[in-house]
Amino acid sequence: MAAPAVQFWFEFASAYSYPAAMRIEPLAKARGVHIEWRPFLLGPIFAAQGWKDSPFNLYPVKGRYMVRDLERTCAALDLPFVLPTPFAQNGLLCARIATALEGPLRARFVRSVYQLEFGEGRDISDPLTAADALRRAGLDSALLERAQTDDVKAALRAATEEAQRLGVFGAPTFAAGDELFWGNDRLEAALDWALQGHL
Amino acid sequence: MAAPAVQFWFEFASAYSYPAAMRIEPLAKARGVHIEWRPFLLGPIFAAQGWKDSPFNLYPVKGRYMVRDLERTCAALDLPFVLPTPFAQNGLLCARIATALEGPLRARFVRSVYQLEFGEGRDISDPLTAADALRRAGLDSALLERAQTDDVKAALRAATEEAQRLGVFGAPTFAAGDELFWGNDRLEAALDWALQGHL
Repeated sequence: MAAPAVQFWFEFASAYSYPAAMRIEPLAKARGVHIEWRPFLLGPIFAAQGWKDSPFNLYPVKGRYMVRDLERTCAALDLPFVLPTPFAQNGLLCARIATALEGPLRARFVRSVYQLEFGEGRDISDPLTAADALRRAGLDSALLERAQTDDVKAALRAATEEAQRLGVFGAPTFAAGDELFWGNDRLEAALDWALQGHL
Repeated sequence: MAAPAVQFWFEFASAYSYPAAMRIEPLAKARGVHIEWRPFLLGPIFAAQGWKDSPFNLYPVKGRYMVRDLERTCAALDLPFVLPTPFAQNGLLCARIATALEGPLRARFVRSVYQLEFGEGRDISDPLTAADALRRAGLDSALLERAQTDDVKAALRAATEEAQRLGVFGAPTFAAGDELFWGNDRLEAALDWALQGHL
């Protein structure tokens, strides 16, 4: 029997994907669950729902709540939290770089991006910030160019279409077999579901 | 110093208010936190955001996820779950009855309504269902008439305006001092916040 596995679908524009990315590996390791890190884009999925912006901008009362909720959530995890300007950030470049990477290197790069974006409030659409993220993750800056090749672009588009087919409508989403779990607060439930062999 | 307290803002149309209503009192009691049960109406608040229906109906992919998520959540709590038809239900009559009640009687009636609505899939806009809820809670059916008096109607309207002023945008919402916690999955965080005297 294969080791239990969970797909972690994340979006760099998504603020709740930040605490999820920072805490998923220790929780998964403690349960013996393998994590597949899956970058994708929410833009096309939101557009299909008729949204042209983050729901937190479309609904300002909800947006203010989100910031406070993230402040509390990150404080409890001892993570710094700074809402970047603009919010939501354009994560296309970083999503392509993540797509060009695999396995633990991808995970390490993704955490570096989130630390810069929501830990320090940096603009991750700036190639200099992406270069910083690569440096902090100990990765080659040549990935900036590699990320802009047609095969990487196509792979990210295919991942986004796969997410849409699965029924992903927000981020972070955790997929354990056919079951989807949406939101940082469902992370433990997804890992437990995979572990308990409901699959 | 007053005992720590949390306001529990609930809506009978809200499916996630059901598990919250069923589990809040034992969790609060274990922490010595007092719960103030606050019925209100989401309709006017959703309308102010431009929604004329439940977001779970407006966004069907999200709606299907919600049903599955509630099935899992309720199974873990050993609660039956049946999505009532139609969804969302019109909870006006029951919200008025809840408003006409106080303290533990209100809480008992609210739980009876949720059990009928989401445990058995009954239509709570039907006065016969409301009468059943009163009977199961050991309350007088005269409350059906009392609920339709002008002072009760005005009190429910005032509660809804109070919720809107507080920044409530969905249900369930837990208020601990100035802090709002949205969603059944934030219940423990709200109780702990009140208990830790952050207020």
